[in-house]
Parts: sequence; structure tokens; C-alpha cells
Amino acid sequence: MGRVHAETITFRVPSADVTAIFDPNGAAASEVAESYGIPHTADTSNEIINDPAIDAILICSPAPTHSELIIAAARARKHIFCEKPLERDLNRIDALLEAVNKAGVKLQIGFNRRFDANFARVRQAVVNGEIGMPHILHIISRDPAPPPISYIKTSGGIFMDMTIHDFDMARFLIGDEVEEIHAMGAVRVDAEIGTAGDFDTAVILMRFRTGVVGTIDNCRQAVYGYDQRVEILGSAGAIATNNLYGNEAVISTSSEIKRDLPLAFFMERYKESYANEIVAFVDAVKNDKPVPVDGNDGRISMLMVEAARRSYAEKRPVKLTEVASEAISTTAR
Amino acid sequence: MGRVHAETITFRVPSADVTAIFDPNGAAASEVAESYGIPHTADTSNEIINDPAIDAILICSPAPTHSELIIAAARARKHIFCEKPLERDLNRIDALLEAVNKAGVKLQIGFNRRFDANFARVRQAVVNGEIGMPHILHIISRDPAPPPISYIKTSGGIFMDMTIHDFDMARFLIGDEVEEIHAMGAVRVDAEIGTAGDFDTAVILMRFRTGVVGTIDNCRQAVYGYDQRVEILGSAGAIATNNLYGNEAVISTSSEIKRDLPLAFFMERYKESYANEIVAFVDAVKNDKPVPVDGNDGRISMLMVEAARRSYAEKRPVKLTEVASEAISTTAR
Amino acid sequence: MGRVHAETITFRVPSADVTAIFDPNGAAASEVAESYGIPHTADTSNEIINDPAIDAILICSPAPTHSELIIAAARARKHIFCEKPLERDLNRIDALLEAVNKAGVKLQIGFNRRFDANFARVRQAVVNGEIGMPHILHIISRDPAPPPISYIKTSGGIFMDMTIHDFDMARFLIGDEVEEIHAMGAVRVDAEIGTAGDFDTAVILMRFRTGVVGTIDNCRQAVYGYDQRVEILGSAGAIATNNLYGNEAVISTSSEIKRDLPLAFFMERYKESYANEIVAFVDAVKNDKPVPVDGNDGRISMLMVEAARRSYAEKRPVKLTEVASEAISTTAR
Amino acid sequence: MGRVHAETITFRVPSADVTAIFDPNGAAASEVAESYGIPHTADTSNEIINDPAIDAILICSPAPTHSELIIAAARARKHIFCEKPLERDLNRIDALLEAVNKAGVKLQIGFNRRFDANFARVRQAVVNGEIGMPHILHIISRDPAPPPISYIKTSGGIFMDMTIHDFDMARFLIGDEVEEIHAMGAVRVDAEIGTAGDFDTAVILMRFRTGVVGTIDNCRQAVYGYDQRVEILGSAGAIATNNLYGNEAVISTSSEIKRDLPLAFFMERYKESYANEIVAFVDAVKNDKPVPVDGNDGRISMLMVEAARRSYAEKRPVKLTEVASEAISTTAR
Repeated sequence: MGRVHAETITFRVPSADVTAIFDPNGAAASEVAESYGIPHTADTSNEIINDPAIDAILICSPAPTHSELIIAAARARKHIFCEKPLERDLNRIDALLEAVNKAGVKLQIGFNRRFDANFARVRQAVVNGEIGMPHILHIISRDPAPPPISYIKTSGGIFMDMTIHDFDMARFLIGDEVEEIHAMGAVRVDAEIGTAGDFDTAVILMRFRTGVVGTIDNCRQAVYGYDQRVEILGSAGAIATNNLYGNEAVISTSSEIKRDLPLAFFMERYKESYANEIVAFVDAVKNDKPVPVDGNDGRISMLMVEAARRSYAEKRPVKLTEVASEAISTTAR
Repeated sequence: MGRVHAETITFRVPSADVTAIFDPNGAAASEVAESYGIPHTADTSNEIINDPAIDAILICSPAPTHSELIIAAARARKHIFCEKPLERDLNRIDALLEAVNKAGVKLQIGFNRRFDANFARVRQAVVNGEIGMPHILHIISRDPAPPPISYIKTSGGIFMDMTIHDFDMARFLIGDEVEEIHAMGAVRVDAEIGTAGDFDTAVILMRFRTGVVGTIDNCRQAVYGYDQRVEILGSAGAIATNNLYGNEAVISTSSEIKRDLPLAFFMERYKESYANEIVAFVDAVKNDKPVPVDGNDGRISMLMVEAARRSYAEKRPVKLTEVASEAISTTAR
Repeated sequence: MGRVHAETITFRVPSADVTAIFDPNGAAASEVAESYGIPHTADTSNEIINDPAIDAILICSPAPTHSELIIAAARARKHIFCEKPLERDLNRIDALLEAVNKAGVKLQIGFNRRFDANFARVRQAVVNGEIGMPHILHIISRDPAPPPISYIKTSGGIFMDMTIHDFDMARFLIGDEVEEIHAMGAVRVDAEIGTAGDFDTAVILMRFRTGVVGTIDNCRQAVYGYDQRVEILGSAGAIATNNLYGNEAVISTSSEIKRDLPLAFFMERYKESYANEIVAFVDAVKNDKPVPVDGNDGRISMLMVEAARRSYAEKRPVKLTEVASEAISTTAR
Repeated sequence: MGRVHAETITFRVPSADVTAIFDPNGAAASEVAESYGIPHTADTSNEIINDPAIDAILICSPAPTHSELIIAAARARKHIFCEKPLERDLNRIDALLEAVNKAGVKLQIGFNRRFDANFARVRQAVVNGEIGMPHILHIISRDPAPPPISYIKTSGGIFMDMTIHDFDMARFLIGDEVEEIHAMGAVRVDAEIGTAGDFDTAVILMRFRTGVVGTIDNCRQAVYGYDQRVEILGSAGAIATNNLYGNEAVISTSSEIKRDLPLAFFMERYKESYANEIVAFVDAVKNDKPVPVDGNDGRISMLMVEAARRSYAEKRPVKLTEVASEAISTTAR
């Protein structure tokens, strides 16, 4: 993702420059720096964090490194863009949010899908009242193929790795908080995923505070490709999105009417949304606007992951207040 | 078609009864009579035409028999429903229309496609002004497979056999008369069709009196099935129809996104329109309303067939006034 | 529904005749008898049940009358078609099934949607292995508008009135039994429905014995019309159905690309499936084949309704074995 | 278009640099140079043409300047990318092609639509035999709104301004030359366009050398947006493309099922194809490959424009051999 964001800033954000990058793998850093004309590759992350000429940093490292980097950056008064998940440990989330708040810096979380034209259109329809008051939400989010078992083992589980995006999407689309979650999971695609302690198929039932009910459908394998759709029924109508395709050609033969498969995976499907989120972050920093996805959004998505885990383990619906005694005090945008 | 209409009247038109049928093939007539509880199979068509208890007759016999039957029926003061083409000889059309007019009976032509829900919706959009003033019309009308060569030989040619429906559709949808026709034809599907003196593929360019331009696309073979679509561009929008399918299921596999083929041929595709036209005919007869497709419609479609033939033979655009010196005096509905 | 079935047998089933009908409302019975040429209107249901010339009866009366009529008909050795729900009391279901089994008569339940071309195609895809082994099922089943409150009060609740069809659909499509149900319900459409002790919106999570997971989405009001769709993800692909429309015309204007609303309600949407189920029943009776939807299907759908009710009331997933201690011994087709 | 190509080379073509640009409007040139970090703005086009450090030039100036610039560039041994139309005068086309051939430089014409994913997929289907041997081609190409009358007056007419793209598309998709053209035109959108000596609506009938027949539909105004579709019927199937949209969301309301309008105009619709053609040109120059759209393609498109003009003026089909006595010696790819 570091490379993707470097490319976006270089080519699409004239008002910002990537002045330095750091990667423990120095060769990788040099290669990216050369590709995008980045003047400096740092020897440590601190070198970047403490550079007074730098306004903001993007954290694209593995999740376990996030809280330490965020806290250091906040202390150095840098604005921060951090990839999801914000941090796997709920206590450390509280600590890093405190540091961010205290420093008064901006923290944006990489829930890029909010910036996808399809999902943004759905949110717009809800906000505009085009479908009235929402009643039911469905999110379908399936990968084309499972990752290697080695990845599964360190992924934090399907809820943290896949569903977290959908949890954020649910809050974003409805504009309300989920109160209760009931998660069913199954090993359907690959028994080794089960052996690794995870599952590959999940269906989740959610109830929002305002009474909206919703489902999430996740699977590690949809053989026809990356399947990313949502649908909302409201009091005045419904809105549903379809997948995106590389072309719109329809071929009719003597056996079927057909088209080519949808865009293959997230890099193709969410190309524009990855760029859009960075454009929005730079805009927030430069013009001192609120970031569109903040630390609280990162925190609540993790509360939902934890509620889903408990629900799956205990085979019962779990309220978010069971996970964090403290009430969710803010409302999603 | 006789059987189809007998079924419609029996099952869908409570206000009318089929009291007698005639077919030179007596066994066929008896079989149909039995299927639909028709009380009488006549020995001659005149027996029916002259039966004072009968109000209307349906002529479903081959084209060369039409004018004689129509004239006889008109003289017997019977209302008449006649399959297309009304009559292949333009002079005889004039004669039979005169007989019909003189007798004051109704004559409806079997252009059933006007009664199809898709095409009726297109016409409604034009009439309602939903797409503004029409500019361009496209008609696509392709059969799933060519008929036997023996049929081709007596078909009267592709313009009389296939395009005649589309000529009527063009007038119906636009509500205006075609002034000029330029037809290109080609033998693409089966060389034997060429040997038989016909062609199997045609594209026709038309200009209407009001300046609307249009095309017709005909082919004896679309391997994916019966392809029947129209599209109109107008000053305030456009309307286009799609084919009809036996089911709406979409299957996604590792190689494609697909659906089953459209409804196979005219008996499936136009099932409802065949019934609707008879319902409309009975309604016109019983309630003394104008028939929705009259003798003039039958005549003009034949003028268009003749213009297309000349255009193809002489490789040039042909005006309808070249075919019939007498101006077309009425306007299609 | 009695009228619908009478029309089907009269017009589409040449091998069967409706010889008598009974309705407590004699005028209604006479009107139907006249419409379809039915020779006799009985004074009591027993008159029909005990008529030795009659082979089979169709029960289209309210649910509370079903078990008594079924038991009487079984004793009279009549084959039986019964509308859903089979019977609301689980104990009485056991009793009537025993009577039917003892008499050796056929009992078909009116789960007509199995005979819809769309859903039949989905089932065929599963049986043929076109999508591999099913993983996840989604059923969406929404009415265009809520019924009167008076109807709601005697409907038996949304699970019995609406969801029962979807419970049967779930078993039919997957070909497996549901083991556990978790139902969430909400009053979203009309507060009076809540006052009447029911709710109008429901989302249900199901786990099948083989591990397939599924959801059902029900709402009493989808303002755009009757919304009836299903979708299955399998190991080798997916299949999804769309709604049915009165026409396929697409209109493009300066503000949107649009089409007319889908078929309005069940009488239009399921017209063919209502006919098909009767054709299948007559075929089963005349040719001594098993009925396609039997008494056991009627019983299990009621067990699911009961499990959904408990789940909703107790806010927890409920196993079907909690509802009926006796294991479900047969497998859905 | 100069700006568009400068952006493409800067951001998408690492192997090439824009080293200098010229525009008679110096301020415009400076602004573009600054936007994309172009080191030099020249005072004359010759300054660029004669710069020995420059390998290739892109000509994005008005059509009347093309031949002079091309000839000068060819003499200076520069490879050339030239926007369409290549040159309006057929004799001058011959002269410039001779200069290009003599110099042995590459000349690519800006028929960018060949590089659009939709149309490229259609061509691929033809080449792969996915639809068998082509029979009938339809091209629909409508602008969202007419340009100002001042533009119309210098546009060279609708055939040169709009249809030229479709003429090239016809040759590209079928891979064969058009033999005969019959063009009908009409003033439907704006009477002032007629006053300016042009028309705004055209339907064109074409016959290819191999007997394929085709149509082109052009209109200066489709109120729903930029409409760019093609369709081919072949012996083994058909392929059709749909428009591209900014999102795939479908909204269902109580009055209709709808979606937002398609991408607005050529800059949105053909964004990728403009980039792709430049990538292909640089690749051809750097790796000494044939250009994908060459001077002959530019010449033939102008022969077709001329044939269409004559056909419209003389109200008859016109053969391309009437326009240029010399046979078309090469075949389109």
C-alpha cells in the first residue's frame, strides 16, 4: 500500500510531495523512491517522524507496529494516515487515541471503500433521502481466492482481516452504530483454514441502534472473482450496487448469453478509492478540515470485530456494550 | 395459427365462441375441433362464410387464398381477421379493400407484434412524449434458424416473409409513413438460400415523411435465438427493448457471467401478443370499435415490401410513390 | 386461490375436470362455477369429500379448517392438495399426517414458488452442480405493501404468513434441512402492526445441517413492488435471480436511465407457478407419482416458523430439535 | 488534446519525456508546461521539429495545419502522432503519405477509440472467432449536446467531425474495407445547424468487400448523455457493448427502477483510450514496431467521409472507388 499511496501523491496530488519514505527492506524503499522521484529514503521511521519539514506521515506497516508509530508521530505533531486495522488491542487503541487527541493532530484510517464511487453513491442516496429511512442493509464481500495459509495464521482471523471493512461500510452507509452482532462462521473453502484456527465463510446479522437490521456475507473464495456489493431497503425505495467490470461487452452464443468476469481483486476494483482517500487526507491536512474517517471509526470497527469473535465463539448474539463498557459516544458520519 | 387463435377464443375470450372451422386437411380440422370443443368442422370455407349465425371469420390459410376469401366474406357481411401478408398482388389488394369498404365490415390484419407488451410500451412512450419527438428508429428482427429451402422457395422472399412485420412495426412505433426505402441484402447464412433466389441477411434504411430515419436488421439465423428488439432516439430521450427470457437467473462461474438463451421462437416470444390481437378483434366486432390494424395497414406493408424489392434489385433508394402512384392517404395510428 | 386453481384445471389440464366446488359463501361458489363451467356447487364440503366419483380435492379454505378437512378427505380415500400453511398446530400436523399415511393418499402442499421458472432454475443449477457445493444462500422476499391490520391480526404473524414460503424455498433450493435459526424482527413500516402484536421487517440467519449458512430478508413493504429474489454462492460459482417485469423497455431521459416497476404482486409474479403446481399434482395423482411437495414439507416449514418465533422472543438462535424432539427424519428433495 | 497527451506521457509513460511544447497561444503553452514539468516551450513548431534531441512529435493543432507539419516533421526524421482528421484534402493526404513513406518515419493517427476496452474486446471477439464470421455491424455514436454553431461552421461537417471515428471503428472491428456507402442525413436537433449548411442526425448504410453490411447512427444530441455502442451479429453469435457509467448503483422507487446517466462526454468516456494510444505510440517508436493506426487508416477514413458526402448530396449509394480511382491496396488490421 505504501507504493500505491506514493504513486497517488506523486501523480494526482499536486499540492503535496512525498519527501521521504522508510521501509526496513532498504532495497524496496529505494526502488519505490526511484519510481516516483522521492528524494530521500530514511534509515529509520523516527528520522521521518522527527523531520520538522514534514507535515504528515502515512503508516502502511503491519498492524502490530501501528500504535507505537502513531503515538510517536502524534508527539511530533505530525498528521497521520494509518492503514486498517488501526490496532488489534482495544486498550492500546484507547492509548493511541488519547495521544492523538492530546497532540491535536489529524488521524485518518484507511477505510478506502468509503471513497468508492458505488458505495459513495449509496451513502449519498441515504443522506439525500432518495430511499427514505433505511430498514435493511445487505453487504456482500467475497474474495476471489483465499490467501496462503501462512497469511491466514497471522491475519487476526476473517473478522479482522475481511469483515472489518464491511463493519465500517455498515456504519458508513447507514450513518448509525451497530448495537448487536450475531456471527455464524463455517469452513467451506479449505479445511486447512480450519486447521489454522480460522474459518473462510461467514454470515453476520447486525442490529443498529435505530432498529435497522443488516447482514454481511463474507467468503474467502468466489471463483468468478472479487464480489463487492451492497443493498439497502428503505421506506421510500431501495438501492443496490453491482460489481465493476473491465468491459461492458455481452456475447451471445448458441449456448448462453455471457460477459467477462468482474475486475479481479482489490487493486483493480478499488484503484480509484485508494487515490480518493489520499486526496481527501491531504485536503483535510492542508485546509484544516476534519478527516473523513477518524480514529473513532478505527476503534469502533475493532469493537465490532471483537463482538463478532465472541458471538461466533459463544454461538449467541453479542452487544457492543459487552465488549466496551464505555458507551459509544459519537455517531458515524 | 388457426389452432393458436382457436385456443385463444376458447380460453381467453368468454364473449366469443368458435362455432365452426374449416381446413382442407379434414383430420387436422377434427383434431383441433376436438381439442377446443368446437362444435362443427365445415366441409368448405363457404359453408362457414355463408352461415348466418356466424359474425366473424378468421383467415389463417396461405396468402394466395386471402383475397378470394376476404371478398366472399365481405359480401356475406362477415367481419374478418386475416393473417399477414394481406395479399401479395397490389392490384388485388385494392380490389379486396374496395369489397370490404363497400360491405362496411371490419378487416383486421394479423400484425400481432403491435400487441406485444414491449413494443406496445415503446409506442406508448412515443405517444406520451416520454422521449420527445422521434429522430431515429432501429428494429432488429432475427430468426433463430432458417426455414427449410422448400419454405424459402414459396415464402415470397425475405422482405415479404420477415421484413413485412418490421415494416408494420416501423409505422406503428413512429406513427408516420415511410417515404423512401433503401435495402441491402446478402447471402451470409446458407448459399442454398441464394440458389433459391432469395437472401438471408438484410439491412434496410428508411426515411419517414416527417424526416425520422430508421433501419431494419433482418437475419434468418441468430444462433443464440430469436432476437426481437427496437430502439428509438428522440428529442427528449430514448427507449430500447430487450429480448424476453424463460428465466432471469444469472450464473457466475470461474470463466464467465452468464444466463440462459432468450425465448426460442415466435410461438414462445409472441404467445401473449397472439392472444391480445384476437381479444382486440373480438372487442372491435362486439362493440363496433375500429380495428387496431386495418386493411390499409395491410396494404401499406405490401407497398413497402415492393419498394424494398426494387431497391435491392436496382441498388438504389426507392420512394413508395414509385410503387403506387396514388398517394398514401391515411396515417398510421 | 380456489378460483385460480379452478381456472388452471379448466383451461390447462385437459386430463382433469372440476366436478364440484364448495364455499360457505354460496354466491361466490356459484359465480366461480359459472365462470369455468363447473357442473356442481356442493352444499357442504362433506358432499364433495364423500362423492365416490371424485378422485382428489383441493383445500383452499382458511388454515384453521385444514386438519379436519384433510383427515376427512384421507378417510374418504381422496388425494389432497392443501394450501399453505398446512396447519398451525404442530400436534394436529402429526395427527393429520398419520391419517394421510394410513389412508395411503397423496397430500401436496401449496408451496407454489418451487414451480416458478426462476427458482426452479436455481434448484436445477444446484442439482446439476453448475455452482458446485452450496456455501451461502440469500432469500429476499418483500411485499409491495402491508395488508390491512385486520388481516395482520389473524395472519399468525409474519413468520407464518410470509416467511413460511421462504423457509420452504431455503430447504428446496439447498436440498438440506435447516438446523438452527436466529430471527431478528422490527417494526419499521407501520407502528400499528407492532400494536397488533406483529412486526413488519425481519432478517433471519439459518444454518443447515451440512454447514451451509443462509439469510432471509422479509419486509411488508417495498414501495417499488413485489421483490422476490434468491442468490446462492457455491464452491464453483454463484447463481442469482432477478425480479420479473411486465416489459423489458429501458427509457433514457435527461435525468436518468429507467424502467417500469416489476410485476406488482403474487398473482402476477407467480401466475405460472400456481398453474404448474396444479399440473404437477394432477400428474402425480393420475400417474401415481410422488407429489413434489408433501406433508413432511408442510410440517417442517411449520417447525421452522415455530423456531423463528422462539428465536425472536428469546433473542437467541434456536435449534429445530428444540421445537420437535423427534429428529427430522427425511431430507427435502 | 495536447494537454491530455502531455499528462499521459508525464504520468503514465516512464520511458518517454515531453521535452518541449509549442502553442501559438504562449500563455496556454506555459501553463501546460508548468503543470507537467515540461522544461521548454518553443517559439515555433519548427524549433521542435528541428531539435535533434527530439525523437517524435505529437500534432494536436487544427486539421488545416496537419499536412504541412507532418511533411516538415517527416523530413526532419521525426516519428509523428497526428490527431484526426489526418488532412481534409485527399490530394494533400497522398502528398504527406509519400513524404512519410520516403522518410521512413512512423505516423500514427489519433483514432483513440480503438484502444477503448469495450471496442477492443469486440475486435478481440471477432479475431478469436468467438462470434464466427461477422454478418451485420451496428455502430451508435451520439453526442450529449451539439457544439456551438461557430464550431459547426468550421467542423467540416458531421461526417468529418463525428462519423470519421465511426468509419474507422467499422474498418477496425470488421477487419475489412467498406466498398459502398449510403448516407441519409436530417436536421432534427437544431434548425441553425441546417442554416449553417450541416445536419445533426445521420444514418449510414455500408457494405464491406466481404459482404458484411453495417449501419452507423449519429446524432449531435442524446439528452441522456454520450452514447457509444457497437453490436456485431456473426455466424456463431453476437457481441454488443453497453455505455460506461460513473457508478453501478440501481435505485428502486415507487415510480421506477433507475440508475444515473452514463459518463458525460469523450473526456470521461475515452480517458483510458487516450492514454492507451499514446502508450502504444511510444512503444512503437521505442521498439520499432508498426504503429497500430497508420497513415493509410487516416487516408481511408477520409475517403469514406467523401463518399458519405456525395451519397448524401446525390441521394444514392456511392462506391469508394468513385472517390479514389486507385484501389484501396491495403487491408485494415
